[in-house]
Amino acid sequence: MAGASEEETVSLDLLRDKMAEFAKERDWDQFHSPRNLLLALVGEVGELSEIFQWKGEVPRGLPDWKEEERLHLGEELADVLLYLVRLSDMCGIDLGKAALRKVELNAIKYPVVACKDSSKETQQQ
Amino acid sequence: MAGASEEETVSLDLLRDKMAEFAKERDWDQFHSPRNLLLALVGEVGELSEIFQWKGEVPRGLPDWKEEERLHLGEELADVLLYLVRLSDMCGIDLGKAALRKVELNAIKYPVVACKDSSKETQQQ
Amino acid sequence: MAGASEEETVSLDLLRDKMAEFAKERDWDQFHSPRNLLLALVGEVGELSEIFQWKGEVPRGLPDWKEEERLHLGEELADVLLYLVRLSDMCGIDLGKAALRKVELNAIKYPVVACKDSSKETQQQ
Amino acid sequence: MAGASEEETVSLDLLRDKMAEFAKERDWDQFHSPRNLLLALVGEVGELSEIFQWKGEVPRGLPDWKEEERLHLGEELADVLLYLVRLSDMCGIDLGKAALRKVELNAIKYPVVACKDSSKETQQQ
Repeated sequence: MAGASEEETVSLDLLRDKMAEFAKERDWDQFHSPRNLLLALVGEVGELSEIFQWKGEVPRGLPDWKEEERLHLGEELADVLLYLVRLSDMCGIDLGKAALRKVELNAIKYPVVACKDSSKETQQQ
Repeated sequence: MAGASEEETVSLDLLRDKMAEFAKERDWDQFHSPRNLLLALVGEVGELSEIFQWKGEVPRGLPDWKEEERLHLGEELADVLLYLVRLSDMCGIDLGKAALRKVELNAIKYPVVACKDSSKETQQQ
Repeated sequence: MAGASEEETVSLDLLRDKMAEFAKERDWDQFHSPRNLLLALVGEVGELSEIFQWKGEVPRGLPDWKEEERLHLGEELADVLLYLVRLSDMCGIDLGKAALRKVELNAIKYPVVACKDSSKETQQQ
Repeated sequence: MAGASEEETVSLDLLRDKMAEFAKERDWDQFHSPRNLLLALVGEVGELSEIFQWKGEVPRGLPDWKEEERLHLGEELADVLLYLVRLSDMCGIDLGKAALRKVELNAIKYPVVACKDSSKETQQQ
């Protein structure tokens, strides 16, 4: 399928198409209104938060997590992504383009030099 | 940069690399702990919700929305995505692979025939 | 005042004290750091959202909901409240006072006459 | 107003009545459908999260926070509470009773002795 290149690069378009096909096959389009999907997204963000809620600060790479916990985390991160992709599609927004555009806007909003200086002094982004 | 093919297919790996470069250039790695990024993600989900909060149900494709509102929506969807990509990276999770795997798990959990039948009767997924 | 009879008025201070006692009896104070509680709150907001996610718009008073669904909803609303109360306590914030103060600030921010006029024309608060 | 007793104990019924009056005076009842209020609540939880997002772990009582930051935090905690109170009211749920009931259910679900033992060994609640 287009979008999934030889080395497993996963594109947002591929996920969008997979979600669309998935919903169509199950007659779920009827449930996939923007606000339904948004609340489903919030539900998944809640499940993602539950994974981290009693852990205190956790270091990058999650060195002490068991493989089972990593798999669970991957599933919750994926659930958030899949609803986000589907919500964008149902809103007629090209999520990939929007993300690239936002990175460019952020680069203008947060110039490298100014940020380097301020991040030495403060924790504010 | 690898990953952005000629027709603007945006891959999760491309966004991950852009976010990593963005943070590194600004000395922001120090702030990008998993729980910091998770809370930033929750913040962006809140901003996304604010767009929809007083609107009642909205139809797919957002036919009555102004271009300015669409742009704003695209930015908030992008913000959620970018923090999700960065959070996954800081957790050592391959978000694209996790998403493909979750789609497959969902296909097993919700077989086409059973879902088609039940979606005629109920709103439960 | 209707609804708040002498015997059934539940105050925020009462809930705060109950939560403090509950945590102390179970040696849970060690887990109740502000950010742990905040993520737990986000988790409960997610569960609350799941109740509403596939329903489309629902009318006030939830006329078609079964008693079992109402009880479940009450439990999720309560979970959000209890973590909010506990989070406030662990941050040293008097939640009741803060709420009364916010109502007053809102009354200044949104004067009655201006809001009545604009709410005839628009859905913006 | 009745309900705020001599020592400033703030009850959920008082806040419910204040919110109802506030909305009525401004013709806002029309916007206060359950899902609108739920999304507004999610928006406020996002603003609350933004306060904590770049801070790493913060100790109880927030000893190093400025008075201005505490006031801001109090406002966001209050916003979450006020929408939660209003959402409960629009759903016909007595939030105070639901909270007391949930505390009792939790006491059954998490007996003191079992929790004390397990909290010595693990971070799971």
